[in-house]
Amino acid sequence: MTQEYEEEFNKLNLPDDLKKFSYDECRILCKEIRDTLIKTVSQNGGHLSSNLGTVELSLALHRVFSSPKDKIVWDVGHQSYTHKILTGRLKNFKTLRKENGLSGFCKPSESDHDAFVSGHSSNSVSAALGIATAMKLNGDNHHTIAVIGDGAATGGLSFEGFNNAGKSNTNLIVVLNYNEMSISKNVGAIAKYLSNFRTKESYKRTKTIVERALDSIPVIGQPIKKTLKFSKDTIKNSIFRTTLFEDLGFEFVGPVDGHNLKELENALKKAKDIKRPVVVQVNTLKGKGYAPAEDNPGEYHGIGSFELKTGNPDVSKCDSFSTVFGCELSRLADGDNNICAITAAMKYGTGLDKFAKSHKDRFFDVGIAEGHALTFAGGLASMGKIPVFAVYSTFLQRGYDQIIHDLAISNAHIVIGVDRAGVVGEDGVTHQGIFDVSFLSTIPNVTIYSPSNYEELKACLSKGIYKDKGIVAVRYPRGNEKDCILKKDYISTDYELYENGSNALVITYGRLFNEVSYAFDKLKNVGKNIDVLKLINLSSVDKEMIKEIKSYKKVYFFEEGYYNGSVSQRLKNEINNLDCTAIYDFVPQASVEATLEKLGLSGNEIYKKLSSEI
Amino acid sequence: MTQEYEEEFNKLNLPDDLKKFSYDECRILCKEIRDTLIKTVSQNGGHLSSNLGTVELSLALHRVFSSPKDKIVWDVGHQSYTHKILTGRLKNFKTLRKENGLSGFCKPSESDHDAFVSGHSSNSVSAALGIATAMKLNGDNHHTIAVIGDGAATGGLSFEGFNNAGKSNTNLIVVLNYNEMSISKNVGAIAKYLSNFRTKESYKRTKTIVERALDSIPVIGQPIKKTLKFSKDTIKNSIFRTTLFEDLGFEFVGPVDGHNLKELENALKKAKDIKRPVVVQVNTLKGKGYAPAEDNPGEYHGIGSFELKTGNPDVSKCDSFSTVFGCELSRLADGDNNICAITAAMKYGTGLDKFAKSHKDRFFDVGIAEGHALTFAGGLASMGKIPVFAVYSTFLQRGYDQIIHDLAISNAHIVIGVDRAGVVGEDGVTHQGIFDVSFLSTIPNVTIYSPSNYEELKACLSKGIYKDKGIVAVRYPRGNEKDCILKKDYISTDYELYENGSNALVITYGRLFNEVSYAFDKLKNVGKNIDVLKLINLSSVDKEMIKEIKSYKKVYFFEEGYYNGSVSQRLKNEINNLDCTAIYDFVPQASVEATLEKLGLSGNEIYKKLSSEI
Repeated sequence: MTQEYEEEFNKLNLPDDLKKFSYDECRILCKEIRDTLIKTVSQNGGHLSSNLGTVELSLALHRVFSSPKDKIVWDVGHQSYTHKILTGRLKNFKTLRKENGLSGFCKPSESDHDAFVSGHSSNSVSAALGIATAMKLNGDNHHTIAVIGDGAATGGLSFEGFNNAGKSNTNLIVVLNYNEMSISKNVGAIAKYLSNFRTKESYKRTKTIVERALDSIPVIGQPIKKTLKFSKDTIKNSIFRTTLFEDLGFEFVGPVDGHNLKELENALKKAKDIKRPVVVQVNTLKGKGYAPAEDNPGEYHGIGSFELKTGNPDVSKCDSFSTVFGCELSRLADGDNNICAITAAMKYGTGLDKFAKSHKDRFFDVGIAEGHALTFAGGLASMGKIPVFAVYSTFLQRGYDQIIHDLAISNAHIVIGVDRAGVVGEDGVTHQGIFDVSFLSTIPNVTIYSPSNYEELKACLSKGIYKDKGIVAVRYPRGNEKDCILKKDYISTDYELYENGSNALVITYGRLFNEVSYAFDKLKNVGKNIDVLKLINLSSVDKEMIKEIKSYKKVYFFEEGYYNGSVSQRLKNEINNLDCTAIYDFVPQASVEATLEKLGLSGNEIYKKLSSEI
Repeated sequence: MTQEYEEEFNKLNLPDDLKKFSYDECRILCKEIRDTLIKTVSQNGGHLSSNLGTVELSLALHRVFSSPKDKIVWDVGHQSYTHKILTGRLKNFKTLRKENGLSGFCKPSESDHDAFVSGHSSNSVSAALGIATAMKLNGDNHHTIAVIGDGAATGGLSFEGFNNAGKSNTNLIVVLNYNEMSISKNVGAIAKYLSNFRTKESYKRTKTIVERALDSIPVIGQPIKKTLKFSKDTIKNSIFRTTLFEDLGFEFVGPVDGHNLKELENALKKAKDIKRPVVVQVNTLKGKGYAPAEDNPGEYHGIGSFELKTGNPDVSKCDSFSTVFGCELSRLADGDNNICAITAAMKYGTGLDKFAKSHKDRFFDVGIAEGHALTFAGGLASMGKIPVFAVYSTFLQRGYDQIIHDLAISNAHIVIGVDRAGVVGEDGVTHQGIFDVSFLSTIPNVTIYSPSNYEELKACLSKGIYKDKGIVAVRYPRGNEKDCILKKDYISTDYELYENGSNALVITYGRLFNEVSYAFDKLKNVGKNIDVLKLINLSSVDKEMIKEIKSYKKVYFFEEGYYNGSVSQRLKNEINNLDCTAIYDFVPQASVEATLEKLGLSGNEIYKKLSSEI
């Protein structure tokens, strides 16, 4: 956005003044917004493709409806940047995803215009139905609009929402943003079904053809039409029925071109007039208006900073815990036909793309459906297959009951690759992987490993697949292995004790081991010494180990996870003089480094604490 | 079943020999099985209506397919009794739901014919897809059959299963058992949609009418038919498309009469020949063949023992924690328009039937969709409503992520009535409510109350609604309040200390307080004394209370919940001399009394332990 434009824009009363814009002014605004989106994301990282795809839609919504009286619920919220700009947040937009800055998702505490928290997929229809129902109970005639992508629609929660909303008789509008992909390629029958609307003759046209054809038949045409209409239900279910959403009780409008503002506004106005649940299908192009993103929307889904002109990401691709996991799994699968890999729409994020290529028949992208992924894995396991489900820690929360009921009770043998375990940084509070150790610990028959480097990761994966029984969770952080001053000349999957003759012991695991190593080094420089215990298997409380721990005068535990249900809390039962530093609340967005610092879990903070105490 | 018949039947090679039965013999067998079902359930309690509805279906499945090579996955499994009888378990059928007896659900460890664990709804399609996929990978041409009721189909997990299965190209057959109700009345658009098939002209007939009508039109009829068929997709989506399941990629067979064995077998054979995913819709009558159950299938869904001739349940209806909860909530709602009540298909079980009658517009039965219930509640709460979701502890597991993401992060104020908390008895391992304290404790902004009697329940509910912030879980056991020897003349929602001058303190909460009181009394009789601390608020670790606890020489904690993440584990961090008795593994079926005994949590066991130690 040019500075002049921005200054003028900031003077507006938003979003109300948008209604006064001419279509020409709207066109200019959309261009200016796209410039801002591309520039800001190139600097701050974030979601680009999805936001470029919803510029016109956001504008249309704010011109047809009156937020915050009308409520807009963005599913996932990764497409809400334009909405943020249009609701008075342009001034702070450069703080997007920064510490104390604007969230990359919707956040009611950030603005009245963010009607519901977003981040995890598929909740919008249910949340919007709750809001619309409250409006109805209050005699409030405003509208609630859920905006959901076709990817998010593969989640069972959204189906539950649709199933309940259809009969609700509320002023609920669901905008189905169809863009032919979720995060990786969209999967499942729903996606295929929707794409029919897009790629073949549109439904409406078909319906018109049928009606016209019957109308044009003399004498018999009308009786047929009448015969076919003898029961409204029968007709809807045969000749004139339209979409799956109508089966679910919704009216249906669309599909409309999501980059044609007039068409969009007409469709939304039509939906607004219906006064009962409506689905409006809007076809959009991910990455619209930025060639590199249009060409590779997947790469620009969630992205770090990148060079504006070329679209080249700042950081070249390198190994990460995710890719090492994926490569090792693929290698093991080369020699073992029983290994199957499952992802919930995160083929690239979880590093499974290699496996997908080399073992196509044993690779399953189930869409955004973590519950199904786990139960499906249970089915595979019951037949002797070895299913490995790679999933972000925060999304594994969606499968808690499936782990208990469909896997743990029968002691099914499956391996879960828990990616993005621990603090995740800029994605913020909704995406932190700080609960997995706690909630997995509440389930019998689960073994949890937390490797701190690639070799350990490989060893844990292999042990999990071939030696352990039951459910094995191997958890690892976002990002890559760090050089570490503390090393052994062997690889363990249990624990490692680094003895330096100190009477103070520091216990930790996973990524924090690097932070502790840093502190160890820094302490050494000031003449102080610590012993370090690195846990790798977090589930076993080894008696020998407890005995070792008890021999220390003072014991410090640093843990990158929620305290309740944590390993340190469990160990504290055994060790009286244990001092625990863990996470005691939800964690807001900030870089991983800044977050660890604030939580007292960075190398530097660990150093500071210890140097004053030992 | 007559004794002679049973003896002959037990000599068969099951289920293979069923294929040799004539239809007349089948009819007799079905009658004999119904007799056995009614008799056994009248003695042992269990699910009656659903099992009476699936007698012919079970027989047809075992005649058309060859279990265990073909795999049958029963959703929920509460309709699998006939399947058990047909697969060699008649001899043990009288042990149904008893300790060490047959499970009331499917259990792979009980029989090879139980292909997957069941108990929680909606997992069958996902599990069966896993099994069918493994078969496909193994080059095994057998079939996997999921049997799912229309109630279970309202769960999002089943949608995720359908969405993934449709495109799978496996030998998967989903038998949709349509019986017009789940546990209470079926809800949602899907139910309505399916009932169209049942109550209106069947789809097939409609299709035939259309085709014939077009065929009969001279000259123009064929061209229209051709025009309409110009694109296969367009046609399927307009004129000739059939069911929602076809949209999801399945072939569709039915609906067929679920009590007509021939029709059933023909449909299943047809499905078997298709060699790709098929949905077979089977219409059944819950309670079929037993008049009291046909008339009141809801009452005979899950039932205790009853009198065979009249169908009268043994125990007359009396107050329970559930009904007290429901009545109190209804009373509070009389004076407060903001209170809304939500159930996931458990209106009667959770005691919300009264609320449903008196506050119809604020009562929401969302079907078997716990995730949606919570997110929907979040939407209501965001508009200032006070949603109260009553749900069984074991089913709340399905909403773990929704509690974190859609409620706790924004600190939404909602109340969860956690019913059937703790040991549940005969329903067994899949239904135990032993994880809620642990998993709810891993979430910030959650307050947990565990009242031990009705007055406390009312006080906690009222405090949760009006005084507390964030998420409040009020948990209470199945069954009713017991007379308790330890009493205060006031009601607390924090904790109560019963001081008797002992240097041994026993801490507990909820139902176990009665057990401890029993032990207290029994100890007194042998001249031993204990002090007792009853916790009501399980979330706060009150400093004053900790100080009190620390003043005791020995402290015993008895907890009816899984140890990891438990209150006792947390308290043990503070109290060195704390002796904890909690639950350390999954808990199999047995009466509540026998279960508590085995776990060392009955009054008697507590007495035995303490009398030897203090």
